[in-house]
Amino acid sequence: MGRLMPSHRSDTEAAAPVLPPSDLLFWGALFAGLDRSRAFLQLQIRQMIVTAIEDGRLPLGVRMPSSRDLASLLKVSRNTIVIAYEQLVDQNFLVSRERSGYFVVGLPKQIAIEPDSAIATTGGDVRWTERFALHPTSFRNIVKPLDWQNYPYPFIFGQFDPGLFPTNNWRESARAALSVPEINNWARDMIDGDDPALIEQLQRQVLPRRGVRARSDEIMMTIGGQHALYLIAKLFLGATSRIGMEDPGYPDARNIFSMLTSNVVPLGVDQEGMVPDAAFERCGLAYVTASHQCPTAVVMPLKRRLELLRIARERNIILIEDDYESELIHEGNELPPLMSLDRDQTVLYVGSLSKALAPGLRLGYVVAPVPVIRELRALRRLMLRHPPLNNQRVAALFIGLGHYRSHLQQVAKVLLERAKLLDRLLPQFLPNCTWTRGAGSTNYWVSCPPGTDATRLAEAARARGVVIEPGEVFSMNEAASRHCFRLGFSSIRTDRIEPGIERLGTVLAQDLCSH
Amino acid sequence: MGRLMPSHRSDTEAAAPVLPPSDLLFWGALFAGLDRSRAFLQLQIRQMIVTAIEDGRLPLGVRMPSSRDLASLLKVSRNTIVIAYEQLVDQNFLVSRERSGYFVVGLPKQIAIEPDSAIATTGGDVRWTERFALHPTSFRNIVKPLDWQNYPYPFIFGQFDPGLFPTNNWRESARAALSVPEINNWARDMIDGDDPALIEQLQRQVLPRRGVRARSDEIMMTIGGQHALYLIAKLFLGATSRIGMEDPGYPDARNIFSMLTSNVVPLGVDQEGMVPDAAFERCGLAYVTASHQCPTAVVMPLKRRLELLRIARERNIILIEDDYESELIHEGNELPPLMSLDRDQTVLYVGSLSKALAPGLRLGYVVAPVPVIRELRALRRLMLRHPPLNNQRVAALFIGLGHYRSHLQQVAKVLLERAKLLDRLLPQFLPNCTWTRGAGSTNYWVSCPPGTDATRLAEAARARGVVIEPGEVFSMNEAASRHCFRLGFSSIRTDRIEPGIERLGTVLAQDLCSH
Repeated sequence: MGRLMPSHRSDTEAAAPVLPPSDLLFWGALFAGLDRSRAFLQLQIRQMIVTAIEDGRLPLGVRMPSSRDLASLLKVSRNTIVIAYEQLVDQNFLVSRERSGYFVVGLPKQIAIEPDSAIATTGGDVRWTERFALHPTSFRNIVKPLDWQNYPYPFIFGQFDPGLFPTNNWRESARAALSVPEINNWARDMIDGDDPALIEQLQRQVLPRRGVRARSDEIMMTIGGQHALYLIAKLFLGATSRIGMEDPGYPDARNIFSMLTSNVVPLGVDQEGMVPDAAFERCGLAYVTASHQCPTAVVMPLKRRLELLRIARERNIILIEDDYESELIHEGNELPPLMSLDRDQTVLYVGSLSKALAPGLRLGYVVAPVPVIRELRALRRLMLRHPPLNNQRVAALFIGLGHYRSHLQQVAKVLLERAKLLDRLLPQFLPNCTWTRGAGSTNYWVSCPPGTDATRLAEAARARGVVIEPGEVFSMNEAASRHCFRLGFSSIRTDRIEPGIERLGTVLAQDLCSH
Repeated sequence: MGRLMPSHRSDTEAAAPVLPPSDLLFWGALFAGLDRSRAFLQLQIRQMIVTAIEDGRLPLGVRMPSSRDLASLLKVSRNTIVIAYEQLVDQNFLVSRERSGYFVVGLPKQIAIEPDSAIATTGGDVRWTERFALHPTSFRNIVKPLDWQNYPYPFIFGQFDPGLFPTNNWRESARAALSVPEINNWARDMIDGDDPALIEQLQRQVLPRRGVRARSDEIMMTIGGQHALYLIAKLFLGATSRIGMEDPGYPDARNIFSMLTSNVVPLGVDQEGMVPDAAFERCGLAYVTASHQCPTAVVMPLKRRLELLRIARERNIILIEDDYESELIHEGNELPPLMSLDRDQTVLYVGSLSKALAPGLRLGYVVAPVPVIRELRALRRLMLRHPPLNNQRVAALFIGLGHYRSHLQQVAKVLLERAKLLDRLLPQFLPNCTWTRGAGSTNYWVSCPPGTDATRLAEAARARGVVIEPGEVFSMNEAASRHCFRLGFSSIRTDRIEPGIERLGTVLAQDLCSH
């Protein structure tokens, strides 16, 4: 225990208020990570002691500082330490000896956690690469900096805005789901089922907002909307199935389809969304984002929606409608999704609660005819059984308590304000660009002057703290969208929008001059 | 509002303690579902009011009962009603008018939720069936009654035991994950990432118990262990890949493989687990449950483990090791999993936290070489991005606070007691049967006398309240396991075991006599 400098003071030294200097160093280092700005100090302290016992820094027999000394060192209340120690005694990490204090019980065998670099990796990539049946890393994907929250001007799409999350109401619902009867509800394996309470809330409060009316056996939960796309694709696509894909379009959908069939057909997009032309008529299925086309954000007018449905019915085309962000903003002119206009069961509908709440929760769903849901459930059962039921129950409570409705109202207000601001700022700061954004959408699709390389522009902007999403990944032929970028506003604080756009304008002007 | 019998009493009637009889009927029916045995009465009341407003039973303008009247009707404290009403005012479901009470604001348009039967389904199965590229419903699956908790003697495997769930400690961790900084951690989209805190806890506390040492980039989280199997199969199996499958074996694994390749090769199982014979040597991959073979629960001795690894190395066979229940019971003679004996990276390791905690949480993981994890992450990103991050964070806190360790100790104690009890009871009540169960396993694999149909036996037993799992689904040739059943004891209360086995013995004796 050499380096530990364990405490040897008499246990009756009740008056000694502080630890001796050598101890101070050791215990100070051990609790260095304590974050007083965070709640749950007592939990943090326990976690640090457990970790130190687990990795051998606190071996068997070490005496812990008195609660008074540790409280004084960590600047927390003495009671916090007493509670932490007692809990650790209950868990057998510490033992309390009368009049002597708390001692580490330790573990039968110490487990040293080693840094990654200390663990060798044998076997090169080549050996494995030749064994893979597919190479998912080779797909072109949307790239967003994972640390986008660290940039002052993140104009990115569909990410979490901490300012908009309904913290207290979510917390209330989550706590309610921790009562014993609720735990008994969600802890079990439902095999291929879902939480009936959540399905009911979707029927009652979520789908009716989109004009969609569904039976409970026409709905299935998924791990986010993307999982719904994957399951549908897997169920319907054989190696040579012909599936139409909006171009430009959502790269993840295109990648999913490309993994399953070699016949992904690009379908043109104009100011009214996907064009139902001859290429469309030859497809067996088609992926369509009618509410706001991804990424151009244009809204398909009612006339084209009806035409699409007519052709789909006549040609027996299955439409996969990805209503990925529903209508987060109400601008008074919402159109019903294809699903709600469909009288012939030609549409499979994909929705998500993630955009409105938090992407990290991964809550999506699919609405489809009974025979389709039946197969999708069997497929999902095979793949992963069901989305975690505790989250399903929390969401059911959240919606059932009316929080979802009030939350959407609150979000819509903020997003509408941002959209109006951008409508005013874009002509001012990006005078050489054009853009589209239909009602209800949370992004603009910006076209720069011909010859602009938006990927290079995005890099230059990012160096100045502005994050935008280059357009080329959205097109099957990269060059087609090279001069475009997506400008999202659901994750940037309203007060950051004006300085961010101003800076983006400067970066673009410099780019235009230099090339 | 005819049937509503709205309250018309003067608002100054402070002394009137009860509702008039007509109101009583209406409001009593509205709150009929209130469960006073559950916590969160105030939440239940709010949810019922919201639901009634959403579905039109409480239309615009209805006056709510006074808090005193409703409190008296529902037998809750008046304060509960006051808080509920005030919250509903904040949410715009009610409005408070001075001296008049609370009135329903209602919704812009009423949404009537209809029973499933009222919504027509057009389009028959046939039309859809011909469009499917595969038919997942056609797989043979393990069938457990979904309502197994309602049977007095559920000898089923791998399900949730409410008596063993660490309610308070899980709740503590879940609440800690609801602090604002934690929400900011888990609410975001991690694209293809996982919670680094959970990965660290796996490295630190979970994997070392199994002798597995892994770098952080050799671990990936999945939606339960089954999802890990699916991802691995999808990455490695082409249409003609040759994969060895234990027979009898885990039906879900077999179904996953069968969906991807037509070359699923049955591999024999003896008293030492999977047999590494000539058929094994010709496989490209093999699925193996060395710790306790599923379903026979036999433990593969060290000698065969080493032989398996040697052949795999020589023949370039990839071993998928499903350590599905780890070692829930410590019986003092644990053997290291193949993964921890492997020096040549021939093993891909699948683990799960669901068995020890709760299947409903769906928390699994895979440990594999870096190039494999890299592709698995890209594949998972395509399929569903990542398992919900809030659950990852709660699990990280739960493990980090030392609760996982104490929980496993607690579970092991109870399960060992049940195993000892069954070791004593089986010879007594099932004298004509034989069975296997290796150390650490939570099920027996019982063979009845030749000619017994265990599926019929299971039906007869279920009619008497005893649930067992018929064996035939575990074998590729159903007849091979028709006389066997799986007897699990992780979900049945200890005090129910003796009467349950006695009753099962009676049912079996009757079956043997009658055929």
